[in-house]
Amino acid sequence: MSILKRVYFFGNGKAEGKADMKNLLGGKGANLAEMNHIGVPVPPGFTITTDTCTEYYQVYNKDQMLLIESLKPEVEAHMHEVEKLMNSKFGDIENPLLVSVRSGSRASMPGMMDTILNLGLNDAVVEGMTRKTGNARFAWDSYRRFVQMYGDVVLGMKPENKNDHDPFELIIDKMKEEKGIQLDTEFTVEDLKEMVKRFKAAVKENTGNDFPESAWEQLWGAICSVFDSWMNDRAILYRQLEGIPEEWGTAVNVQAMVFGNMGDTSATGVCFSRDAATGEDQFIGEYLINAQGEDVVAGIRTPNQITKIGSERLAELSGYSEAVRVAEHISLEEAMPEIYAELDKYQTVLENHYKDMQDMEFTVQEGKLWMLQTRSGKRTGAAMIKIAMDMLHQGMIDEKTALLRLDPNKLDELLHPIFDKDALKAATVIAKGLAASPGASTGKIVFSSDEAAEWAANGEKVIMVRVETSPEDLAGMMAAEGILTSRGGMTSHAAVVARGWGKCCVSGAGSLVIDYHTKTMTVGGKVYKEGDYISLNGSTGDIFEGQIATSEAELDADFEEIMALTEKYARMKVRANAEAPADAEMAKRFGAVGIGLCRTEHMFFEGEKIKAVREMILAPDQAGRKAALAKILPFQIEDFEGIFAAMAGLPVTVRLLDPPLHEFVPHDEKGQQDMADVMGVDVKVVKQRVDSLHEFNPMLGHRGCRLGNTYPEITEMQTRAILSACLNLKKKGITAVPEIMVPLTGILYEYLEQEKIIRTTAAKLFEEMGDSIHFTVGTMIEIPRATLTADRIASAAEFFSFGTNDLTQMTFGYSRDDIATFLPVYLEKKILKHDPFQVLDRNGVGQLVRMAVEKGRAVRPDLKCGICGEHGGEPSSVEFCDSVGLDYVSCSPFRVPIARLAAAQAVLKG
Amino acid sequence: MSILKRVYFFGNGKAEGKADMKNLLGGKGANLAEMNHIGVPVPPGFTITTDTCTEYYQVYNKDQMLLIESLKPEVEAHMHEVEKLMNSKFGDIENPLLVSVRSGSRASMPGMMDTILNLGLNDAVVEGMTRKTGNARFAWDSYRRFVQMYGDVVLGMKPENKNDHDPFELIIDKMKEEKGIQLDTEFTVEDLKEMVKRFKAAVKENTGNDFPESAWEQLWGAICSVFDSWMNDRAILYRQLEGIPEEWGTAVNVQAMVFGNMGDTSATGVCFSRDAATGEDQFIGEYLINAQGEDVVAGIRTPNQITKIGSERLAELSGYSEAVRVAEHISLEEAMPEIYAELDKYQTVLENHYKDMQDMEFTVQEGKLWMLQTRSGKRTGAAMIKIAMDMLHQGMIDEKTALLRLDPNKLDELLHPIFDKDALKAATVIAKGLAASPGASTGKIVFSSDEAAEWAANGEKVIMVRVETSPEDLAGMMAAEGILTSRGGMTSHAAVVARGWGKCCVSGAGSLVIDYHTKTMTVGGKVYKEGDYISLNGSTGDIFEGQIATSEAELDADFEEIMALTEKYARMKVRANAEAPADAEMAKRFGAVGIGLCRTEHMFFEGEKIKAVREMILAPDQAGRKAALAKILPFQIEDFEGIFAAMAGLPVTVRLLDPPLHEFVPHDEKGQQDMADVMGVDVKVVKQRVDSLHEFNPMLGHRGCRLGNTYPEITEMQTRAILSACLNLKKKGITAVPEIMVPLTGILYEYLEQEKIIRTTAAKLFEEMGDSIHFTVGTMIEIPRATLTADRIASAAEFFSFGTNDLTQMTFGYSRDDIATFLPVYLEKKILKHDPFQVLDRNGVGQLVRMAVEKGRAVRPDLKCGICGEHGGEPSSVEFCDSVGLDYVSCSPFRVPIARLAAAQAVLKG
Repeated sequence: MSILKRVYFFGNGKAEGKADMKNLLGGKGANLAEMNHIGVPVPPGFTITTDTCTEYYQVYNKDQMLLIESLKPEVEAHMHEVEKLMNSKFGDIENPLLVSVRSGSRASMPGMMDTILNLGLNDAVVEGMTRKTGNARFAWDSYRRFVQMYGDVVLGMKPENKNDHDPFELIIDKMKEEKGIQLDTEFTVEDLKEMVKRFKAAVKENTGNDFPESAWEQLWGAICSVFDSWMNDRAILYRQLEGIPEEWGTAVNVQAMVFGNMGDTSATGVCFSRDAATGEDQFIGEYLINAQGEDVVAGIRTPNQITKIGSERLAELSGYSEAVRVAEHISLEEAMPEIYAELDKYQTVLENHYKDMQDMEFTVQEGKLWMLQTRSGKRTGAAMIKIAMDMLHQGMIDEKTALLRLDPNKLDELLHPIFDKDALKAATVIAKGLAASPGASTGKIVFSSDEAAEWAANGEKVIMVRVETSPEDLAGMMAAEGILTSRGGMTSHAAVVARGWGKCCVSGAGSLVIDYHTKTMTVGGKVYKEGDYISLNGSTGDIFEGQIATSEAELDADFEEIMALTEKYARMKVRANAEAPADAEMAKRFGAVGIGLCRTEHMFFEGEKIKAVREMILAPDQAGRKAALAKILPFQIEDFEGIFAAMAGLPVTVRLLDPPLHEFVPHDEKGQQDMADVMGVDVKVVKQRVDSLHEFNPMLGHRGCRLGNTYPEITEMQTRAILSACLNLKKKGITAVPEIMVPLTGILYEYLEQEKIIRTTAAKLFEEMGDSIHFTVGTMIEIPRATLTADRIASAAEFFSFGTNDLTQMTFGYSRDDIATFLPVYLEKKILKHDPFQVLDRNGVGQLVRMAVEKGRAVRPDLKCGICGEHGGEPSSVEFCDSVGLDYVSCSPFRVPIARLAAAQAVLKG
Repeated sequence: MSILKRVYFFGNGKAEGKADMKNLLGGKGANLAEMNHIGVPVPPGFTITTDTCTEYYQVYNKDQMLLIESLKPEVEAHMHEVEKLMNSKFGDIENPLLVSVRSGSRASMPGMMDTILNLGLNDAVVEGMTRKTGNARFAWDSYRRFVQMYGDVVLGMKPENKNDHDPFELIIDKMKEEKGIQLDTEFTVEDLKEMVKRFKAAVKENTGNDFPESAWEQLWGAICSVFDSWMNDRAILYRQLEGIPEEWGTAVNVQAMVFGNMGDTSATGVCFSRDAATGEDQFIGEYLINAQGEDVVAGIRTPNQITKIGSERLAELSGYSEAVRVAEHISLEEAMPEIYAELDKYQTVLENHYKDMQDMEFTVQEGKLWMLQTRSGKRTGAAMIKIAMDMLHQGMIDEKTALLRLDPNKLDELLHPIFDKDALKAATVIAKGLAASPGASTGKIVFSSDEAAEWAANGEKVIMVRVETSPEDLAGMMAAEGILTSRGGMTSHAAVVARGWGKCCVSGAGSLVIDYHTKTMTVGGKVYKEGDYISLNGSTGDIFEGQIATSEAELDADFEEIMALTEKYARMKVRANAEAPADAEMAKRFGAVGIGLCRTEHMFFEGEKIKAVREMILAPDQAGRKAALAKILPFQIEDFEGIFAAMAGLPVTVRLLDPPLHEFVPHDEKGQQDMADVMGVDVKVVKQRVDSLHEFNPMLGHRGCRLGNTYPEITEMQTRAILSACLNLKKKGITAVPEIMVPLTGILYEYLEQEKIIRTTAAKLFEEMGDSIHFTVGTMIEIPRATLTADRIASAAEFFSFGTNDLTQMTFGYSRDDIATFLPVYLEKKILKHDPFQVLDRNGVGQLVRMAVEKGRAVRPDLKCGICGEHGGEPSSVEFCDSVGLDYVSCSPFRVPIARLAAAQAVLKG
């Protein structure tokens, strides 16, 4: 074996490694080294290189123990360095040095290997710790945790099957039963001692060996265990999926443990380089004297503010005197001014180094400050924007970095109403559903569309509660403050419509039992009646009892600046999915440069229109359909004039009638009787026709251009309406840019048939009107077969718009209305990483999209390609769309800012 | 323009072209030339080359008329040759030569251009024809047909839009109204004269020109029209689809017309070189003296037999005397012995030349025999086999040719019962449905599964009539002679199940109104009650009133020989889809070498099993499910023992539970009450659970391995049952070869989860039983996403079985149960060439299959790939499967011979 440097030291402002040595030291090891170089004190330690791991596997099963032997002198020498710096000794009883052992590979591989803390403890050392800290409970609790962690990870006590019981957990449960207690914190020191004893017995029983008492033996066990973990099934699978080569190997980081609970010169805390709630450029944080990190988080003792100003602000808010503040809530700045000055320096160093707001953990052990961790801090949407723009204005980061710092999804928070924070604290969550459409809403429960409309007309704020919604419910949904359903996923009818309108919606709240008959909603044994108040948080899926105050969102200058930046960097355009002129206006305000999807059927439900639509559907023959269509025509012209006028000069993609006809007809007796009266036929005839529209799988049935091809008169009427509207506007000097879109094409010829009808109708109309207008004809690409034959379809279609909702349904074979039975299990078991209806599945659906774009552009290089499925407003999906070269994404108006940001980021990342 | 030979003559046993000059003369022209070379007299004529067509387009819009001018001398010279041979003159009034003009390109392009017959007729010539034939009606009818045909095709009178009226047809309709007649044949000669006048007036009105009177002008118009037709929209589209280059061009064939109605030395007839019904090697045919070809076909006069033996046989069958035979039914052999001898010679020459049974048309014009057409004759399934095997035995063709001569689909006729032919003649067709599963059946109408089972148990033959069937109906379907449904396509439940059993089924007979309540079936105003007899022809879709005698199929030595030949030439293996041991036995008799799809759910419906299955589904929790599964286990073991024993030594692919659970539970009140009693719960609980199983699109819902992943205990039970059965058989010395198949995989991880359960269960069972058996684990590939990620899935799965039913559903977005609303329109409008559930769609679904095989084998070269969808028994789909390298196809037992033949043909064609 060659003689190599296998171990790299770091500590006391020096390090043998540095940031660019990730390949050799792994990400964590290189960073620990770098922290030392920039003058941030981290507990000292050393990193065993990734090359050593590779060596280990080269000699595996032959003489890897020889390698370990040859590693020993180097590790021991470095451990002595650490001992010197920490002024303690590894394995020593009176003044023990404890260490942590962690893996760390070149690429992040989360969850591949657990961390082992407090390594070095044993029956003797724990007593020394007790004496040193004067805290037996802490020492023994650390010890029993160490034994459990080491037993699970290194000694293989953790069962392979998640469903099997961890023997340590069984012991804890049994002891709780014996003691009649429920919480871990209720164990006494004696209990903890007993627990360690039983843990060790379990180790002996399971492995045949005693738990290692020697600190060194513990350490070598842990190091080998990290190396071994590189080849465990989980890690191998993860690497296969992420394309990480096996040869990279993992490094091992051994680092001194430090303790903030060693008396009054010790302390621990967390801090942020800027305010994570507001984004204000103000150092902020909390700390506790003589405490462990856990104590700050756990809320057993109330921590104090780090800065004086923070402490004073709190006093003012809480209304206590300066005397009380100084006596009980003194800041670190005042209590330990030197430590504070040092900490303040490091927070600045770290923020300047990482050029982002940092969330830091620190510990003061006997008057010495250690930085334990730093990472980019979590923040609210508002803080995210303020911090990024402040840093841009402060010259810390450039425009691109500022844009990349923003999480597009968080923009949502800024666009929708939110609950008053204080009011929220007092609120009771009664159930949880899917966060289907963001925002906050509060109102009285109603159980039907009619009632929602009626109550709202009377000035009541209502929440419409349904098992599921259908197009018949649109009027009520429009009138309600929020929508709650007990069935259906993120792309159920309720969710899609609500997002389109920017209205708050919680869907698929399966624990609700809704009874339309008694007008009640039951959950957790409690019954809520019509008229009772509830509140919904569409951003989290929480359902609350009673009323909660909400406040409207306001868009500030930072927001406008960000939008301007997206314009500068994005390649793709962003359009909106909208039918109503008001929605189109809103989309334009958010920066949409066109309508990517105008669903004509949404126009069918208002007022009298639906009767004519129903008459058309229920007609016994073509003549009857044509008569009814003639009634619909003027309505449709008016509808189209509205949307084209709202988008004057911008393109509007109008999709021809798409949904199965049964969605439009009345399924109740009264509705059927009404239609029978309108049509002058027996109600039985109406019922029979409604029944005949029943389909086993309507999603795969008579819809899309299958309607236009079996009933060409519908396509004729719609074409006439679209182009008539455009010509009417032309007379008024308003420019309409119509794009007529054929839905659900799967076969070239079905597109050709539709195109022929459209062009023939247009020619006839233009002749009649003595005027014409330019228009294009294209198709949705939402059937797998359309993607596979996109070259053929593009020979005729002038544009493609990917309908990734349907494409996902058919590529996976999932009905989005029926996935609730298995999707939660699939997400939990990690069979799926995401709901594919939310995040576009790149491997499957994405492969088809890419293929279609390539095939389409091979025959028509200037083919305009866009996406109008729900994914068009989801950032990672938008990034994918950019990568395959789409020209635009189209999404609900409220998601336009998100999509614009994601589109800019896609370019910057690419 | 260069001086080229542009026109090739043929006639009188000579020809300038020959068979291998297709590129220059087109297929038709080359064949006409070849017929002359082999001594068959065809009416003389000439072919204008395809190169001339290309020249025509090179100078198009500039000076194509110059080309036509330069063509004239050559065409005129050849026309004079024809005139000489026909002893008549083109355009002559007293002795006119009439010609036909037809296109003919290198590749067959059916329907691209209509044929023009009787060209050369005008107001004067028609009178000459009348004098020459003594048949004014014939002459004028020919004339009016010519004017209409020429007007439509050459003068552009035919409207472009199919729905618009042909002006000639309008004239005919108007004249019928004026005369108060209904049929064309009722027109008098004077009417026909008037009609010609009106036709010509219409031409003048529409085109502004007179109808051309000059024969030569007519001819040049027709020739240009053929050239022009090469670039019409229809032809361009057709070429694009078939990949035919534009440069190929079309030839023009001008050929003399001959007439069999020129007195008693003229005749016309059709004949076959062998018997098309039985395949017997006996020349056979019919003829009429002084008649046109149409007269033989039209049945206005009864034709006589060509051969003496045929004439004598007919006399014997019809029971008339030799005197009557000679007086009224004399054979051509006796009536015109020299002509007969010549004809007999030519039929032999033609059969020997084409090495296949020929269907020929001939005309004798004034004592001279002309062969007008020869083509391979249509024949019955029995004749197809006998002719091919006779020719093989006679040394005329080799084994490969014999195999390629067989239409696999026609084998079906030989395997199923058929109606007695004479009984069929008297039968009344009351409706027509889809020919869902071949065979003939007759029995009493019953409307429910229970009644079918009950009546059949009492010895009644029944036809089960349902709107549609579901798995609950299996017992009744099994008991019935045949199945009739008013809804559902070729792959509806009824159709698939019936084909699996080889049972006669007619599905989707939409004109039937079925009323379960009154137990009636109404069609065309007539009501049929329970107990009334009906008969079904599953090979044609015909539904008959009353009883019709049927006879069983018998397989002869020829059939066995063919099967042996398929074995010799096929690369792919053929397996069967079967669950019942009896079906497996049948499949083996037909040559299946394994089960490719054993649908475990089909085993669930027999007897007591269904109750345990329902209990499992309706259980409120996992414990309840496990208890019910424990009851099912012994049944499943028994089932599997049966099928493995039947297929001893051969592989059996067992698919784990696949269908949505709602298919198993009772939807009626009584059934729900029964289950409530069995389970000891309130009926409301049962109802609620049944309702909760409702899905909007069950085809895309909770089924396939989504069941096994949400309820792993089902997979455990089934694995245990499969492998227990194998081990039990092993003890008896019977070898089982189990392949466990995971259904509906779309994601690698869902397969991995299932595989883990299967392997863990197996390991546990093998330990318990102290014995083990080899088994493989693989998956159905039926979700588009599975094909797209086949490389990932193949990293774990040991075999792929393509479920092309579901794959077609999802690739097209068609629910096979709901396509009846649009599929007929799509087929009629030629949007689809075939029902994609019958014939595998190569462009879309096929592309995915090919991709999956390639991706799968890239990571696992020995990946076994097969198909178990309905397409596995459809010949062109089998051919496709061979081309993508599948290892086997699996189909219903009755289609095994078809698939075997298709598999052999695929190799021979490839």
